[in-house]
Amino acid sequence: MDELGSDLQPAAAEGLVSARLLDRFRTVRAYTELLASALTDEDQCVQSMPDASPAKWHRAHTTWFFEQFVLVPFLPDYRPFDQSFSFLFNSYYEAVGARHPRPARGMLTRPSAQQVTAYRWHVDAALLEAELPGEAAPVLELGLQHEQQHQELLMTDILHLFSLSPLYPAALPDWQEPQGTDAPTTYVEIGGGLAPVGYAGGDFCFDNETPRHRVYLEPFAIGSRLVRNRDWLAFIRDGGYRTVSLWMSDGWATAQAGSWQSPLYWREHDGAWWQFGPGGLRVLDQDAPVRHISWYEADAFARWAGARLPTEAEWETAAAHPALREITGHVWQWTESAYRPYPGFKAAPGAIGEYNGKFMVNQMVLRGGSLATPEGHTRPTYRNFFHPDKRWQFSGLRLVRDL
Amino acid sequence: MDELGSDLQPAAAEGLVSARLLDRFRTVRAYTELLASALTDEDQCVQSMPDASPAKWHRAHTTWFFEQFVLVPFLPDYRPFDQSFSFLFNSYYEAVGARHPRPARGMLTRPSAQQVTAYRWHVDAALLEAELPGEAAPVLELGLQHEQQHQELLMTDILHLFSLSPLYPAALPDWQEPQGTDAPTTYVEIGGGLAPVGYAGGDFCFDNETPRHRVYLEPFAIGSRLVRNRDWLAFIRDGGYRTVSLWMSDGWATAQAGSWQSPLYWREHDGAWWQFGPGGLRVLDQDAPVRHISWYEADAFARWAGARLPTEAEWETAAAHPALREITGHVWQWTESAYRPYPGFKAAPGAIGEYNGKFMVNQMVLRGGSLATPEGHTRPTYRNFFHPDKRWQFSGLRLVRDL
Amino acid sequence: MDELGSDLQPAAAEGLVSARLLDRFRTVRAYTELLASALTDEDQCVQSMPDASPAKWHRAHTTWFFEQFVLVPFLPDYRPFDQSFSFLFNSYYEAVGARHPRPARGMLTRPSAQQVTAYRWHVDAALLEAELPGEAAPVLELGLQHEQQHQELLMTDILHLFSLSPLYPAALPDWQEPQGTDAPTTYVEIGGGLAPVGYAGGDFCFDNETPRHRVYLEPFAIGSRLVRNRDWLAFIRDGGYRTVSLWMSDGWATAQAGSWQSPLYWREHDGAWWQFGPGGLRVLDQDAPVRHISWYEADAFARWAGARLPTEAEWETAAAHPALREITGHVWQWTESAYRPYPGFKAAPGAIGEYNGKFMVNQMVLRGGSLATPEGHTRPTYRNFFHPDKRWQFSGLRLVRDL
Amino acid sequence: MDELGSDLQPAAAEGLVSARLLDRFRTVRAYTELLASALTDEDQCVQSMPDASPAKWHRAHTTWFFEQFVLVPFLPDYRPFDQSFSFLFNSYYEAVGARHPRPARGMLTRPSAQQVTAYRWHVDAALLEAELPGEAAPVLELGLQHEQQHQELLMTDILHLFSLSPLYPAALPDWQEPQGTDAPTTYVEIGGGLAPVGYAGGDFCFDNETPRHRVYLEPFAIGSRLVRNRDWLAFIRDGGYRTVSLWMSDGWATAQAGSWQSPLYWREHDGAWWQFGPGGLRVLDQDAPVRHISWYEADAFARWAGARLPTEAEWETAAAHPALREITGHVWQWTESAYRPYPGFKAAPGAIGEYNGKFMVNQMVLRGGSLATPEGHTRPTYRNFFHPDKRWQFSGLRLVRDL
Repeated sequence: MDELGSDLQPAAAEGLVSARLLDRFRTVRAYTELLASALTDEDQCVQSMPDASPAKWHRAHTTWFFEQFVLVPFLPDYRPFDQSFSFLFNSYYEAVGARHPRPARGMLTRPSAQQVTAYRWHVDAALLEAELPGEAAPVLELGLQHEQQHQELLMTDILHLFSLSPLYPAALPDWQEPQGTDAPTTYVEIGGGLAPVGYAGGDFCFDNETPRHRVYLEPFAIGSRLVRNRDWLAFIRDGGYRTVSLWMSDGWATAQAGSWQSPLYWREHDGAWWQFGPGGLRVLDQDAPVRHISWYEADAFARWAGARLPTEAEWETAAAHPALREITGHVWQWTESAYRPYPGFKAAPGAIGEYNGKFMVNQMVLRGGSLATPEGHTRPTYRNFFHPDKRWQFSGLRLVRDL
Repeated sequence: MDELGSDLQPAAAEGLVSARLLDRFRTVRAYTELLASALTDEDQCVQSMPDASPAKWHRAHTTWFFEQFVLVPFLPDYRPFDQSFSFLFNSYYEAVGARHPRPARGMLTRPSAQQVTAYRWHVDAALLEAELPGEAAPVLELGLQHEQQHQELLMTDILHLFSLSPLYPAALPDWQEPQGTDAPTTYVEIGGGLAPVGYAGGDFCFDNETPRHRVYLEPFAIGSRLVRNRDWLAFIRDGGYRTVSLWMSDGWATAQAGSWQSPLYWREHDGAWWQFGPGGLRVLDQDAPVRHISWYEADAFARWAGARLPTEAEWETAAAHPALREITGHVWQWTESAYRPYPGFKAAPGAIGEYNGKFMVNQMVLRGGSLATPEGHTRPTYRNFFHPDKRWQFSGLRLVRDL
Repeated sequence: MDELGSDLQPAAAEGLVSARLLDRFRTVRAYTELLASALTDEDQCVQSMPDASPAKWHRAHTTWFFEQFVLVPFLPDYRPFDQSFSFLFNSYYEAVGARHPRPARGMLTRPSAQQVTAYRWHVDAALLEAELPGEAAPVLELGLQHEQQHQELLMTDILHLFSLSPLYPAALPDWQEPQGTDAPTTYVEIGGGLAPVGYAGGDFCFDNETPRHRVYLEPFAIGSRLVRNRDWLAFIRDGGYRTVSLWMSDGWATAQAGSWQSPLYWREHDGAWWQFGPGGLRVLDQDAPVRHISWYEADAFARWAGARLPTEAEWETAAAHPALREITGHVWQWTESAYRPYPGFKAAPGAIGEYNGKFMVNQMVLRGGSLATPEGHTRPTYRNFFHPDKRWQFSGLRLVRDL
Repeated sequence: MDELGSDLQPAAAEGLVSARLLDRFRTVRAYTELLASALTDEDQCVQSMPDASPAKWHRAHTTWFFEQFVLVPFLPDYRPFDQSFSFLFNSYYEAVGARHPRPARGMLTRPSAQQVTAYRWHVDAALLEAELPGEAAPVLELGLQHEQQHQELLMTDILHLFSLSPLYPAALPDWQEPQGTDAPTTYVEIGGGLAPVGYAGGDFCFDNETPRHRVYLEPFAIGSRLVRNRDWLAFIRDGGYRTVSLWMSDGWATAQAGSWQSPLYWREHDGAWWQFGPGGLRVLDQDAPVRHISWYEADAFARWAGARLPTEAEWETAAAHPALREITGHVWQWTESAYRPYPGFKAAPGAIGEYNGKFMVNQMVLRGGSLATPEGHTRPTYRNFFHPDKRWQFSGLRLVRDL
């Protein structure tokens, strides 16, 4: 999900940006601050691995996006908060100029978290006070979607950082885990044929969800629920992490090099399993969907279970079925599909769309949405993607069987 | 193409293995020796990189395959040539037992190339003298296909080794390069619809070509010919290797790390381009198809050209069109498609099929066949595959445009 | 200087720890806080490389030392401030138990800098209020020496971190650089013979300065002053960084891999040289001693100058000569000598002395003292040491010529 | 021992090179061929690690030395055997021009071992037929010493290669191990005072053995014999490889990373220890001196034994004592001394001496001589040196105790 869409939808852009959109702006911006509210300045500063970014960086980068792509182009009188921030908080937009190297984001002890807060207020005030023309609406919407993506990354990144501390701090001390369930998983049969895939509505979507096109499917049966921690324990006990024949060749090498023996945030103490999460280290809920597994693990588990992962077309088709549960709100669900452009995909021109497609190789698609996905952000056509060895996202799986 | 099929086709297996199959056995086995005939014992021994294997290892490993899967199971009295060879020349069949680590294949100065020759004779004689039951035919056929795959790898591996020598030796001193052509490339329009994909005939195929299934295609236009060296020169001169916006993110990082500025075996001397090939270092033929490029380069080139690579379904469908040229005999052609199992794919049980699918992630499909592909080995449904950064194969590209 | 002495000098330990020692305790402890006073909580948290530690960690680790080796053994009623701190802030004392891995010190966003301040107050108060027996004096003294070592490391580590920021913050905004001078360097002749080497006084020294022993020296001439930035510029302009024959083989490889072309903190802007230091980025003072060079560079420079570095015995002998200038207060001075134990050296038993000698290989000795060395901490027999590729210390050189 | 001396001793150089020297030339050159006589062409071609070189390379490089430094300068009519060999078989003489990169020496399958044999004959014949002026004698002598160094490296390198083969071939099938002994080790007391160190005779020595100088020694006691395999077994059984307090910090890290649990070529089968050597895999002789240990291991063992290693000055002084045994003929003996230049050391000018000192950092000195050191090559002042982590040489230790 390192990607940024650009479906600018130059829709009815007469007049001014709508009050409803500005309301959403307030809400989304405030939610980021809520997520960071239990973090100290130090928590926000550190980068735990090259894949992750500091919380402060997420807060500043999302702000920079509005400054760079909304305020500067649409408000002639706008003065950037700080000239150096464009260099510091650009992520990967080559067309916008040079930028601070990604693995060194954690070296930026300055500007401080408080200065970033001031930066956020400055940009928010400027944007809310301005009379933005309606044509700014698409990029403003994009900025909100972008910030929502970073809200999830902020959570997964801070969780990774805290997992390295012997103190196991809670990123969100009042966090309520989604309730697990021991309700049975049934297999829902879905007929084959030509299935439409891709976004068809009139609202926002990312460009990688387009163009809508047809995919031919064979009939299949898909699990009504996600694979659960108790299932994963059975996999572990059956030697899943030691059985080479279950694994892709690259996956086996990765698992051996990393000494993988369980999902990323599981910890065994005195014979009991615990899981580290936003609320800290807690006893593992065997009824909850398994999470923080790589694609390699998901694939091996499915093979062990005599099943397979769904393709993204299958997942998208099945998501409309009323018997399907846990589509979102728990974990992103690995699919069989490599992340590639849809037939006829065109990247948008210019800075915003400059790199829409540049991550479309070596990654696998996840569908659904997780407990960390902001409300309303995801949809059945949404394509999330990560390299198959990544484990720090809220990633799990759902099984499929051929008919 | 590190893969090994297992479509054992337990066809009419009555009586004995046919004389025709044994004739093919003689021909294929002799061709391996022909390929190695200009190599010294030392040439055959060295491993130039972990991806490659020594020529001697290819000669021994293909022999071991017949010993292990034909002679031992079907000839009760057969005595292996040398007990240690099973350990030394097994490639990756876990079910068959432990094996010498792949990156250390080049450490095996013994057994000597001459002992490997003796091994080949021993196994050939045993097999040709035996009265093999008809049920051995499928695995014998598989062994021949397997050896043909290794014939191509033997050539690409020795070429890589020789490319590191300041002497640029010729692997095949009498090698005649396929003639280039300045005939124009036209774009052949192919209609859309549900296209059958996968092997349908009754002869041999690898299991990854099955099951035959349907894929929905939009109309497209595909280049009648391959991209040529002169086209690639234009790409270089236009700054293709320096223009980040043309590249996938992972590709750009790889190209920068490797200081890529041209195809792998191009050398510039005094303003002229040369290419290293089986015949040694020769002046680059601008009319010949470009080769020894990675998927990353092919993808960047296509973007530069305002086109794209074909999907493997498109390629397979177009290959039947009479206007399409250079389908095989020059280079394997990178496609847009990640290497994944076909819908309904099942790996064969047991040692031979143990790992058929284990390479089906992180790699991209190539179609066609190259100047190094043994005659009769490839077919339009054949799926070759390599990681997107690999360049030492005879790999090139063909362009596609959306209609 | 990652080492910790243990010369516990079980001297007259009757009665209580002296008021003078407790005064020194107050002074040294306060100076650490002064050094960190311009640092934000975020500045104090980040680890810029595995060689460096966060400022907060230095502040906590030095405190832990007093808690672990003074309060716990000598105050039966003392309760540690926080049980987890022993794990978090132990550096490398295996006898004291497990510890947080060094390269992950920067992951400790918690405890916060403020909690570390509270920790310091707690320990300081406990120690100053206690009636410590006189036998605690040696380890208390050692703790002060230890903290002074970390004061210098705190400065060099924060400087390294800030050098990675595009903002080049000043660690000590009011910092006054020691004045450079254009006074000439003369060569002071020192006669040969048996020279005493090692500490002989009755005050504190580290165990690696003992035992005092004799070394036979040939006569030599040593530079009265340090090599200056203008000299280094001449070296650069004469191609010093491009002339392989000036370098040790390992040094050349290191310099090439790191693209070294000047001392670590030099920056060239528009034809002028700047240097990053505690006061920020400032115009390079050509009269000041060169600093932030590795042993490899010092050695190459000396060869270029037709001279050599002093051995540590030569340096120690010459330091007593009245004509020698800049012995301390500018830079630590690389010597010819590999860091090895003196004849008859014995490591002290137990935790404190456990590892006194464990760094005595692969490192080179520096003598003198730098602008960052706390007043009174160094002496002519003091042995500082770092690996020959390290550049982030205040390290420079003085030349010697054979007679 | 990657070093090459240059003490050209421009001694009485009138007339022609002596017949005695030419006899030595024949003998030394023949011994190289004897060492390689059991090696196949393939054995001679492969490079098992960057530290090692192929046997063929050793044979060619030593020949190139005579061609480059004797034939070309002193025989105006001499025509090099092959122009490309200067590039291929130069080792590290920058002044002589570009050269093939060291880690890629194993890629040189051509020229063949047979061509190298022809090269040797060609150079030998040219040299022996020539009327070389007496002034060529020093460099001819140097070439012989150089070749003798490579004879030992040829053995250690081929041993390393063969140790990686499951077949454990014998480099010298008729090899007789030096007899071990259960004679007791006594400690020989050596008085202190000013000891002369360095070469004083009139014959050949390497420049790193000069200048002779004085070192002040304290009295010490040195083991009359080397540490034996049975001693090492006691170290292992006592947990030597698991006890961090015995090890240097860098050594512990190296041992952990390499999973060291015994000397390099020990193998445990069914409870018995075997050792791989020039004669293949043989039962470990507990009475024989331990070998193939790094300096880190030697240092840890000495600490475990309550002793230490000798300094090189101590070793050299003690070597003259009649009670000292096993000075050479078994293993090179690690010393306490870092490899640094002697006081007053000057590297010789020009190509031959260009890099005499460039290895004088990060390495430790070994003294004595091993079972693989050619007869007459070593002497008590001889300084061998390797990095402290290297284990593939015939390296062992002798203990010292302070008095």
